[in-house]
Amino acid sequence: MGSTYGKIFKIATFGESHGVGIGVVIEGCPAGVTFDTDFIQSELTRRKPGQSRITTQRKEADEFEVLSGVFEGKTTGTPIALIIRNEDQRSKDYSHIAAQFRPSHADYTYQVKYGVRDYRGGGRSSARETAARVAAGALAKLLLAELGVNVQAYVSQVGAMKLEKSYDELDLTETENNAVRCPDPVMAQQMFDYIDSVRKLGDSVGGVVNCVIKGTPAGWGEPVFDKLHAELGKAMLSINAVKGFEYGSGFEGVTLLGSQHNDAFYIDDNEKVHTRTNHSGGIQGGISNGEDIYFKVAFKPVATIMQDQESIDQHGDVAIVQGKGRHDPCVVPRAVPIVEAMAALVLADFYLRNKSSRV
Amino acid sequence: MGSTYGKIFKIATFGESHGVGIGVVIEGCPAGVTFDTDFIQSELTRRKPGQSRITTQRKEADEFEVLSGVFEGKTTGTPIALIIRNEDQRSKDYSHIAAQFRPSHADYTYQVKYGVRDYRGGGRSSARETAARVAAGALAKLLLAELGVNVQAYVSQVGAMKLEKSYDELDLTETENNAVRCPDPVMAQQMFDYIDSVRKLGDSVGGVVNCVIKGTPAGWGEPVFDKLHAELGKAMLSINAVKGFEYGSGFEGVTLLGSQHNDAFYIDDNEKVHTRTNHSGGIQGGISNGEDIYFKVAFKPVATIMQDQESIDQHGDVAIVQGKGRHDPCVVPRAVPIVEAMAALVLADFYLRNKSSRV
Amino acid sequence: MGSTYGKIFKIATFGESHGVGIGVVIEGCPAGVTFDTDFIQSELTRRKPGQSRITTQRKEADEFEVLSGVFEGKTTGTPIALIIRNEDQRSKDYSHIAAQFRPSHADYTYQVKYGVRDYRGGGRSSARETAARVAAGALAKLLLAELGVNVQAYVSQVGAMKLEKSYDELDLTETENNAVRCPDPVMAQQMFDYIDSVRKLGDSVGGVVNCVIKGTPAGWGEPVFDKLHAELGKAMLSINAVKGFEYGSGFEGVTLLGSQHNDAFYIDDNEKVHTRTNHSGGIQGGISNGEDIYFKVAFKPVATIMQDQESIDQHGDVAIVQGKGRHDPCVVPRAVPIVEAMAALVLADFYLRNKSSRV
Amino acid sequence: MGSTYGKIFKIATFGESHGVGIGVVIEGCPAGVTFDTDFIQSELTRRKPGQSRITTQRKEADEFEVLSGVFEGKTTGTPIALIIRNEDQRSKDYSHIAAQFRPSHADYTYQVKYGVRDYRGGGRSSARETAARVAAGALAKLLLAELGVNVQAYVSQVGAMKLEKSYDELDLTETENNAVRCPDPVMAQQMFDYIDSVRKLGDSVGGVVNCVIKGTPAGWGEPVFDKLHAELGKAMLSINAVKGFEYGSGFEGVTLLGSQHNDAFYIDDNEKVHTRTNHSGGIQGGISNGEDIYFKVAFKPVATIMQDQESIDQHGDVAIVQGKGRHDPCVVPRAVPIVEAMAALVLADFYLRNKSSRV
Repeated sequence: MGSTYGKIFKIATFGESHGVGIGVVIEGCPAGVTFDTDFIQSELTRRKPGQSRITTQRKEADEFEVLSGVFEGKTTGTPIALIIRNEDQRSKDYSHIAAQFRPSHADYTYQVKYGVRDYRGGGRSSARETAARVAAGALAKLLLAELGVNVQAYVSQVGAMKLEKSYDELDLTETENNAVRCPDPVMAQQMFDYIDSVRKLGDSVGGVVNCVIKGTPAGWGEPVFDKLHAELGKAMLSINAVKGFEYGSGFEGVTLLGSQHNDAFYIDDNEKVHTRTNHSGGIQGGISNGEDIYFKVAFKPVATIMQDQESIDQHGDVAIVQGKGRHDPCVVPRAVPIVEAMAALVLADFYLRNKSSRV
Repeated sequence: MGSTYGKIFKIATFGESHGVGIGVVIEGCPAGVTFDTDFIQSELTRRKPGQSRITTQRKEADEFEVLSGVFEGKTTGTPIALIIRNEDQRSKDYSHIAAQFRPSHADYTYQVKYGVRDYRGGGRSSARETAARVAAGALAKLLLAELGVNVQAYVSQVGAMKLEKSYDELDLTETENNAVRCPDPVMAQQMFDYIDSVRKLGDSVGGVVNCVIKGTPAGWGEPVFDKLHAELGKAMLSINAVKGFEYGSGFEGVTLLGSQHNDAFYIDDNEKVHTRTNHSGGIQGGISNGEDIYFKVAFKPVATIMQDQESIDQHGDVAIVQGKGRHDPCVVPRAVPIVEAMAALVLADFYLRNKSSRV
Repeated sequence: MGSTYGKIFKIATFGESHGVGIGVVIEGCPAGVTFDTDFIQSELTRRKPGQSRITTQRKEADEFEVLSGVFEGKTTGTPIALIIRNEDQRSKDYSHIAAQFRPSHADYTYQVKYGVRDYRGGGRSSARETAARVAAGALAKLLLAELGVNVQAYVSQVGAMKLEKSYDELDLTETENNAVRCPDPVMAQQMFDYIDSVRKLGDSVGGVVNCVIKGTPAGWGEPVFDKLHAELGKAMLSINAVKGFEYGSGFEGVTLLGSQHNDAFYIDDNEKVHTRTNHSGGIQGGISNGEDIYFKVAFKPVATIMQDQESIDQHGDVAIVQGKGRHDPCVVPRAVPIVEAMAALVLADFYLRNKSSRV
Repeated sequence: MGSTYGKIFKIATFGESHGVGIGVVIEGCPAGVTFDTDFIQSELTRRKPGQSRITTQRKEADEFEVLSGVFEGKTTGTPIALIIRNEDQRSKDYSHIAAQFRPSHADYTYQVKYGVRDYRGGGRSSARETAARVAAGALAKLLLAELGVNVQAYVSQVGAMKLEKSYDELDLTETENNAVRCPDPVMAQQMFDYIDSVRKLGDSVGGVVNCVIKGTPAGWGEPVFDKLHAELGKAMLSINAVKGFEYGSGFEGVTLLGSQHNDAFYIDDNEKVHTRTNHSGGIQGGISNGEDIYFKVAFKPVATIMQDQESIDQHGDVAIVQGKGRHDPCVVPRAVPIVEAMAALVLADFYLRNKSSRV
């Protein structure tokens, strides 16, 4: 269990890091959405490994095949299955850790839970699974674009290096112009150099991805348990290596007084309702209010490092896990399209759920 | 939609702030759990209003009635319905805001979404709904107690006043000894005084609740989307006024290197697997590893303040929302049992889900 | 598990035969539906016991209380909880069977499944639970009425006495004019006499309920697993004592040739698509085609009879179950509103689900 | 929506008749089940077209590829994706009906629902989708076999030719020895000849498939809505061309008296609980009682016939649908493995659901 997401716009992902491939079945996408193959491929390309020397050197074209649900360039309302075949599997790289539990990986917990596990590259627990999310999220983005909703993420922190400006003080069109995906070019270069230095040490470092969603109409999200930000939080926390989520004023907002934090309503010159501030992050009572939705996602340093580490093996014996393979010293640059994909999936689902609010 | 939570241990809450009452149907609780009425009542009492002068003076006994699912003191495996009737409804208190949208409340978003709303005290969006969660969570706690799992939350921050010690440096048995529910008595008194001063200003302030779960066996949680921490995050973010969630090393963990952050495995003297550090917060790959699970939840200052605020009404006219009524100047003391309840519900559900991992 | 039904228009029922009461939480009903209390009560009255001498003499007013989700006479989009309190519980009637397994009841299977059971009147397995379905179904009917959809059921068979005419050859407005709910008054009287004679023997007999749904627009129902007739079938088979379901040409249709069975399309004088015959029962590929939907539901003779029967008890000893209590000699007259209620719930859900078929 | 089935042992099928292929993602299969590729292939072969002259002459090897979830011959607890590529697509066969609505097919209803449709061979509505169910059901059978549960179906009726013996009077091992899959060899030959004569007329005919499940422990199935027979009914009714479902005494049982119909309990020589008769069909209160489960499924004559038929097209014009292509004159022989597959999926799911009945 656990490999499906969404209530109406639903995805079921499958596949392992070193198996045949990674895929997804998307159910509940409305009929008639233009299926833009090039766009979906471009999103996969943003996530794929080997983009620069600060990402893993695993070689994957990450090209996808459509198996169903699309006819004459449009979605038909039936399930859309996509598969991305693995190419650079090199399973032998992992034979040395078949019986070992790598620190802060899922090896131990999968073994306890299931009694068996596909140890090759982490099997199902590998972040390679997120390729399927990106493909599905790209379709969700295409649906949202028809509705005027736009999702954009960027790197705001690497290690202790932190962008202090908020999203509306930045030029987000710069984001894709550098390998780090930080919209501030100067900071981006510093982050790049820092990640590269960490890489040379065989170590890894964490970071933060920010995301802003523009154009969401008021009314999306559901009361009580399925609040818009609660689903966003779950979706983000489900991404590999994520340790925290906050939206709107977040953890810093706790230090404010209510009189400072409350967002006063007003009517703008176009007779549209707005708030003077947006500590609410575009969400009130779990439902979008029409303002920008924004949030932050914290990623830990990836667990795979090129250093020897103390651990144990399946037999309970002490083991030294030796760093090998090809991994990301910092996950956030490649996490940007994943964060966007998950946000788009959440929103597409709430768009459809909201259709039932009234007769 | 949105008023149900859980896959197997499932709850469906209902009720409005100023309607007949608040209730819950719990489905999927296994048969044979001892239904300890006194314990469930004591949990509701921990959440109820009017506990001290820093909580709302609304008068509610918050006594619950069992409508089904319990026979001769045991759960029977069938749905357990509980209701807590509202007593101190004073609906007239709210007539003045019937057409107004209170800033940073759900009035506006509900109106847009549904076209109608029960404006009395926030209706369905009121935090009074959490009484139902606490009742259901109390039953989840009873189930977990039979399995040796214990959930404990406490206040770690009010405004900028922050407890720097971690949970294992504190005496958590002190938590219930003060009105703030902070386990450090000195800090608790300072927090109390601060909240009281904010109250006198007719203002409100935010805070942070920490939670630790001890005794969870390894293997609970599901891969990919339904990771244990992702469900914990969703559950916490679904609580009224929550703005952020982090677990284990959280947002601070992003500044560490992988070599610092990774939790080395070892075998203890009882042949049990442990990790030397616990940056993972007891969860690896979304599945519990047997270590303590711990996390933090950020609460914004409550939106209701006793001050006049700029806003609009349903007709699009400018309105001044005048502070009235009886509200909490700081939500975190009463949020402690709510956080525990939601955590217990998440864990009870994963306990049952994990039963299907193997034949 | 098992006490919830529906994907969007969802119900969760609770309660036991001799507990506090029977209730339901309805989630996903759109906002703005007029909540006609009198109509809902009238539907409950159609199902309630004691209507004539051929139904159980248990005395229940079956009056319901609204606990939530309705404001100023309209649904608000939030969960609607209803409760019908039990009055005539007489639990002592059942003490003699506390340890016995009544033949063809659920006593044995509940005991094996759960290890405990509320033996009073069958507890959760009692058909009294269907009161909650009728209340929820009444609301679904109100929603459907706003959409022009009408559901009507009637008794077509009791024992071997069978109405040979199809629904369009009958005057269905006669249905409620007799205690059997058979629209043919002559047959109704014969059925009544037969049931009464069976009652005097302390025995019971089965029957068939037919149902026809008029006004369903084309397009409701989902492909593959959630076909409209598959959900109707599940919903009907979930009613106590049901043994079979068929729609359209049903079991008799298997003897036809395709050239006889196929329903030719044509355009009527109002430019509307119709079929010349309706062996399809208004459903093609699991989706409504705009024609009348019709189906049959077979009910076994109720298991409770006023005769001694061979059985065993919980200790594995032979026991003679002695018939006592107040029960229906034939369930179909009271099943008519239950069949309608479940059909209405299925349709209301598909109406909402269909909203997501297109952008 | 509609393409997923199951709560814990869940399947999501995808694919169209003349697209890339048909596939399924199976989620929730426990870890450690031996994945017997040969058995799964043999089940697909039982369903595949072209088995004899009374089945469609479409040429499909129906070989499947495993995409995920299996490692070293065992299931790993993660999603298992399987794909069966289409070979003999001949899409040009269908161009003549691109704009036409074939009588009693899903062409019209899909068009109304979605606005677009893949008209090639019925697209998603084609019974070719059931290949995915058979593959998934084969895995469910492997799981059930480990638990001692066995599912077996057979043809009991073709047109008006009906096997009067019950399953325990037949030698079910004969079922696979003839092309009709009728366990009575004499009747099988008559049925074969009849189907072949219907085929020569370019017509089709309906039939009935019976199914018996042996070895189910008492306790599987859930109360109220998710009764074991209600799920079986839904699962069967979701198969293409099914018009009716009955279990145990079925529609005939309505003519019995309760005193005749009730199944008396007794203890056999091995101290095991049994019933003297089995009108209950192995299910009481929706939960298995340990006796054989048996049911019947009615299939209409397939809608595709090789004769000209009156219809309309998408523009509302009258059209003559001309019979072409390669189709089954009678669906029941190939439906046998599909019925078994769906029954196995239902049971596997209830096996897992039942694990949560007690702590």
